[in-house]
Amino acid sequence: MRRTRLKAAVLGASGYTGGELLRLLDSHPFVTVTNVTADKSAGLPVTSLFPHLETFHEFRFAPLHVEPILKKVDLVFSALPHTKSMDPVTACVKAKKPVIDLSADFRLMERETYERWYGAPHTSPGLLKKAVYGLPELHRTRIRRSRLVAAPGCYPTAAILQLAPLFAHRMIQTDTIVVDSKSGISGAGRSPALPYHFPEAHDSLTAYNVTRHRHTPEIEQELNRIIHGRKEANVHVVFTPHLIPMNRGLLSTAYAKLRKPLTNETVTALYKEFYANERFIRIREESTLVNPTHVRGSNFCDIGAFVDQRTNHVITVSALDNLVKGAAGQAIQSMNLMMGFPEETGLTSPGIFP
Amino acid sequence: MRRTRLKAAVLGASGYTGGELLRLLDSHPFVTVTNVTADKSAGLPVTSLFPHLETFHEFRFAPLHVEPILKKVDLVFSALPHTKSMDPVTACVKAKKPVIDLSADFRLMERETYERWYGAPHTSPGLLKKAVYGLPELHRTRIRRSRLVAAPGCYPTAAILQLAPLFAHRMIQTDTIVVDSKSGISGAGRSPALPYHFPEAHDSLTAYNVTRHRHTPEIEQELNRIIHGRKEANVHVVFTPHLIPMNRGLLSTAYAKLRKPLTNETVTALYKEFYANERFIRIREESTLVNPTHVRGSNFCDIGAFVDQRTNHVITVSALDNLVKGAAGQAIQSMNLMMGFPEETGLTSPGIFP
Amino acid sequence: MRRTRLKAAVLGASGYTGGELLRLLDSHPFVTVTNVTADKSAGLPVTSLFPHLETFHEFRFAPLHVEPILKKVDLVFSALPHTKSMDPVTACVKAKKPVIDLSADFRLMERETYERWYGAPHTSPGLLKKAVYGLPELHRTRIRRSRLVAAPGCYPTAAILQLAPLFAHRMIQTDTIVVDSKSGISGAGRSPALPYHFPEAHDSLTAYNVTRHRHTPEIEQELNRIIHGRKEANVHVVFTPHLIPMNRGLLSTAYAKLRKPLTNETVTALYKEFYANERFIRIREESTLVNPTHVRGSNFCDIGAFVDQRTNHVITVSALDNLVKGAAGQAIQSMNLMMGFPEETGLTSPGIFP
Amino acid sequence: MRRTRLKAAVLGASGYTGGELLRLLDSHPFVTVTNVTADKSAGLPVTSLFPHLETFHEFRFAPLHVEPILKKVDLVFSALPHTKSMDPVTACVKAKKPVIDLSADFRLMERETYERWYGAPHTSPGLLKKAVYGLPELHRTRIRRSRLVAAPGCYPTAAILQLAPLFAHRMIQTDTIVVDSKSGISGAGRSPALPYHFPEAHDSLTAYNVTRHRHTPEIEQELNRIIHGRKEANVHVVFTPHLIPMNRGLLSTAYAKLRKPLTNETVTALYKEFYANERFIRIREESTLVNPTHVRGSNFCDIGAFVDQRTNHVITVSALDNLVKGAAGQAIQSMNLMMGFPEETGLTSPGIFP
Repeated sequence: MRRTRLKAAVLGASGYTGGELLRLLDSHPFVTVTNVTADKSAGLPVTSLFPHLETFHEFRFAPLHVEPILKKVDLVFSALPHTKSMDPVTACVKAKKPVIDLSADFRLMERETYERWYGAPHTSPGLLKKAVYGLPELHRTRIRRSRLVAAPGCYPTAAILQLAPLFAHRMIQTDTIVVDSKSGISGAGRSPALPYHFPEAHDSLTAYNVTRHRHTPEIEQELNRIIHGRKEANVHVVFTPHLIPMNRGLLSTAYAKLRKPLTNETVTALYKEFYANERFIRIREESTLVNPTHVRGSNFCDIGAFVDQRTNHVITVSALDNLVKGAAGQAIQSMNLMMGFPEETGLTSPGIFP
Repeated sequence: MRRTRLKAAVLGASGYTGGELLRLLDSHPFVTVTNVTADKSAGLPVTSLFPHLETFHEFRFAPLHVEPILKKVDLVFSALPHTKSMDPVTACVKAKKPVIDLSADFRLMERETYERWYGAPHTSPGLLKKAVYGLPELHRTRIRRSRLVAAPGCYPTAAILQLAPLFAHRMIQTDTIVVDSKSGISGAGRSPALPYHFPEAHDSLTAYNVTRHRHTPEIEQELNRIIHGRKEANVHVVFTPHLIPMNRGLLSTAYAKLRKPLTNETVTALYKEFYANERFIRIREESTLVNPTHVRGSNFCDIGAFVDQRTNHVITVSALDNLVKGAAGQAIQSMNLMMGFPEETGLTSPGIFP
Repeated sequence: MRRTRLKAAVLGASGYTGGELLRLLDSHPFVTVTNVTADKSAGLPVTSLFPHLETFHEFRFAPLHVEPILKKVDLVFSALPHTKSMDPVTACVKAKKPVIDLSADFRLMERETYERWYGAPHTSPGLLKKAVYGLPELHRTRIRRSRLVAAPGCYPTAAILQLAPLFAHRMIQTDTIVVDSKSGISGAGRSPALPYHFPEAHDSLTAYNVTRHRHTPEIEQELNRIIHGRKEANVHVVFTPHLIPMNRGLLSTAYAKLRKPLTNETVTALYKEFYANERFIRIREESTLVNPTHVRGSNFCDIGAFVDQRTNHVITVSALDNLVKGAAGQAIQSMNLMMGFPEETGLTSPGIFP
Repeated sequence: MRRTRLKAAVLGASGYTGGELLRLLDSHPFVTVTNVTADKSAGLPVTSLFPHLETFHEFRFAPLHVEPILKKVDLVFSALPHTKSMDPVTACVKAKKPVIDLSADFRLMERETYERWYGAPHTSPGLLKKAVYGLPELHRTRIRRSRLVAAPGCYPTAAILQLAPLFAHRMIQTDTIVVDSKSGISGAGRSPALPYHFPEAHDSLTAYNVTRHRHTPEIEQELNRIIHGRKEANVHVVFTPHLIPMNRGLLSTAYAKLRKPLTNETVTALYKEFYANERFIRIREESTLVNPTHVRGSNFCDIGAFVDQRTNHVITVSALDNLVKGAAGQAIQSMNLMMGFPEETGLTSPGIFP
């Protein structure tokens, strides 16, 4: 029986992802959060921003000074925004502290791709090849051996998981895949702005960043790897995210052309087999059972695959909670692997419905 | 100056589409609703189901006996459900009363297609070729001369309008078009059922009728006609509708592969030209301005088209109010044409935002 | 028949109330908006903030320089915020232009009361007694003769209208009236802030400004006037506003102790009589028919009154659209009276449901 | 260390309260659900109605035959509706099985009061005096010794907890208390009906059962007991429930006249003292922090009390999750007491925000 808990820091803890890390780690049996930072809210009690997190009532947000924190903790979660995370994460690696980065800063293998899509220079390009893409269902073994995991966000997690079996079995044409994703508004972060002002976002529905959302290259990179084990140019994904008037939850609908005719039963059986040992993946046989309302607050990703024989397409649908399997839960799942804990530790609560 | 108003009946007036017909016709200067039917609510005051429609406070729903009504009115709107509308509409045609049918019963030209997708025999197949598909932007001249118009519903209207310019200019490959549509829940009608029970539908998001939604053949039929003037088999649409937790409004995102590279500017210019004289179509240059929140309660359809040069695709987005341009407003627009009124009569109110 | 339309300016037109004035005036037959100001958005097209208002596509917001505008217009609506409206409104009065102020700056008769509740000096105290409180149902005759009308906002309108008959007939004890009001979030304005950020306000429900909401003295002033024709100290209202996760709409529930037992029928009959000639007041006999969903987008206020014989209390409920009868519609109703137009001009559209 | 878990049955498990009992008991360390009934859904898998409850994938709903179930289990939760629960609960008592009834059937001490408000004869009037009202914060000792606990629902729990300190300290006049409560729609149950059909309930807001909601006598009974230890006639509560467009969560605002002037600080201090040892009650000093969004999915009840010195009233606000502290969580809290477990067992998860 484990006697002492590991001490964890959460950097950038004032947003929704940070709050969700605190909520989930609060009931983790082997890890205790000891340090939280939030530059703009430094000095404020954690409960002033998260009144629901009663057990943190004695915590205050610290400013983002990484070095002193690294002396006190055993591992680090970084929930800092894109481009802001690479320096603190690099400091963790130098201090030999295991770190799970929830930003995009270490998800792309190619520096050039990162700099083109994020419009900023990468200050630690040498770490890009060392970082492991933190999707346990695809990279479990490498995550176990890694000290730097780049946990994917909600859109790539949903898209890659819903398409992976089709790629693994070479069932589809890979040059024209359409991914049409719908996300709750917590995915846009906690900073107030007009598009997320309640009266603008309620009863509202839009496609945004059409043709240019930054998660596109990440989805293509990982799907490419399933086929070839290396980055190639032939997978093309047309990815369109949409904002939906709900808080949590993401539904992704992907369309691909089958290389040869297949029945619905064959495809479903293949999905069930592909994910047979996955604790957090559930294959559904009706599309209406793939619904973020059934995974809310949980680490599950529900998936369904449906063949349209008339047009020879396969349509797949995946649902997850963008703050759990799409962020904090997924990061903890990787942390469990890195630390040698059972993978599902602290993540087994069912969703809250309705 | 017109002295007497035409008298109109609304059959099946107790649902949301019926209510919207009453709301819009209430301010129409040349038409007065004199008869409303609703079999299950026969005898009830209209205001018991539509408390907002004060001006109908002396009306009661009548049972669905068409013949006596036809003697009293000049024209008929049928908001009856699919398969229930064909007999009353046939009676109207026989009585030589202009009729606008809001069901799917006369939208498909081929009897066989209707019977396959709707799973019911068609009792008036002879009228299928006489009915005009009530999308004024495409069939204005024929609607003017018609006495039987089959007004399209929300999904086909959004899909056809957003794709028509691409078809007209032969810019896309027509065998693999993906239409991913998102609709508010009023589109599911007014009959209570578990999927639409508030706690199930709120904070919920699903794809439904995947690969088999009945509006698919209608979309293909009309897109085919744009190319050929006749039904052919080569247009294939993969159509997936989704339920969104909002009342009114529909957003449709369509994906097609360009036949040759084009710039965003070229495509937008072409859309503006194609719809230059259309009062109810607005072309938007940013995807976030295509939003049902800006057309709520109005007859507008907002459309944007965006080229993804990386993948050589064009992504189009369209937004409309499913009860207005997707139902009652569109029917009135056709009625105006049939009766020789200015097309926009009674339909010029702006949307209600927020 | 009127040949020329009056020209109107809307000051502070970039918020929700301003947008609603533009929407409603757009279909007003006797008034045309010719000038709109919005200091922070000066230079922007009106449609950049209000994409639904197509007919204003050639308008741009001007900075707030009142004098040159006053030379061009016949009348002015001020939708500026509290404390910012008094100077421009004073300029209108000096220029002898009829003005309807939608802020609180001229609603209170006593300078001292204003300064205590709003925490700012009043720069035109001399106008406080000249301004007429713009609730047509109570002050129609005085509004007709006024050139400066202070249109009440959503909370006071709902509270005063739901309680007025009880005061007029001296049916209740006036020292302990509880008004518990629930408002959609558009009532909080259009400036983004954390409490109105979608993920914070959705699935959320709070009482705010408990014991100290600024509309309290206005409600007491007007109820006092019904009894005495002058301000006295004996009416006490405990007023608590709540934020509800919806865009538009306000429901107010008020509680008062009856001076002597009365039946439900008596009270309802009295309400019907009191408001018998009011075009925009509808008395409902079931509480569930008093619902902002039935007045959305319209100028109606629905009211119900219910006697609890067990406790000898009367409970009244009122519903209105906070942006129409609670703001822009009410201001236009007063303007119609001031200008000698039929009171309901431009305001007769029914609500939009669902 | 406990070796064997107790076996529990849940009667009437197909509604939202039943589902919530299953969700919470799933992680309870000392109890295992072994039997679930649902008459109308008998034979269906539990996951067909609750897709989120993965761990119950081998369970099917049984018909409601209590006797055979009683032989297999150690304790029973009844989530049956009012009037349907009294017979099965009586059977449990006869079989000497501890039972927690979540209906209203055993909450009122007086048979006559029950029959007047529920309009049905009580078939086990002898048990009314033996049943303990299952609000642990007020009746902890008696619950520990009881074998029949009548767990209160959401409205009485919120109202009694927010008013109890004022009664205990005799700070208010007890003849005119106004309780204005706002509930999410899951409180109305899982049976589809027009008022809860999404398009009717969304963007909608109503008061219902005005003057006659059945929970009124229960609130009065319990508040009376705080003063006198017995039922008396002098406490009068005017209780008005409202439906709010959200799923879970209840906010209750109560108004009472102070017997003598008190400061805000005094009242808040008194609340903190009164609930000092209560694990699930949190006293808030700002009204906007009393918000169901912060207790969603948890067993907490947040309370604030605010003095209006101007009118000599105290306004209290309480927030809870109607399915947890207002139903299933509260029932488990009582069960823990009855069985000698630590009171908070299985109930310590924080809320899920946003």
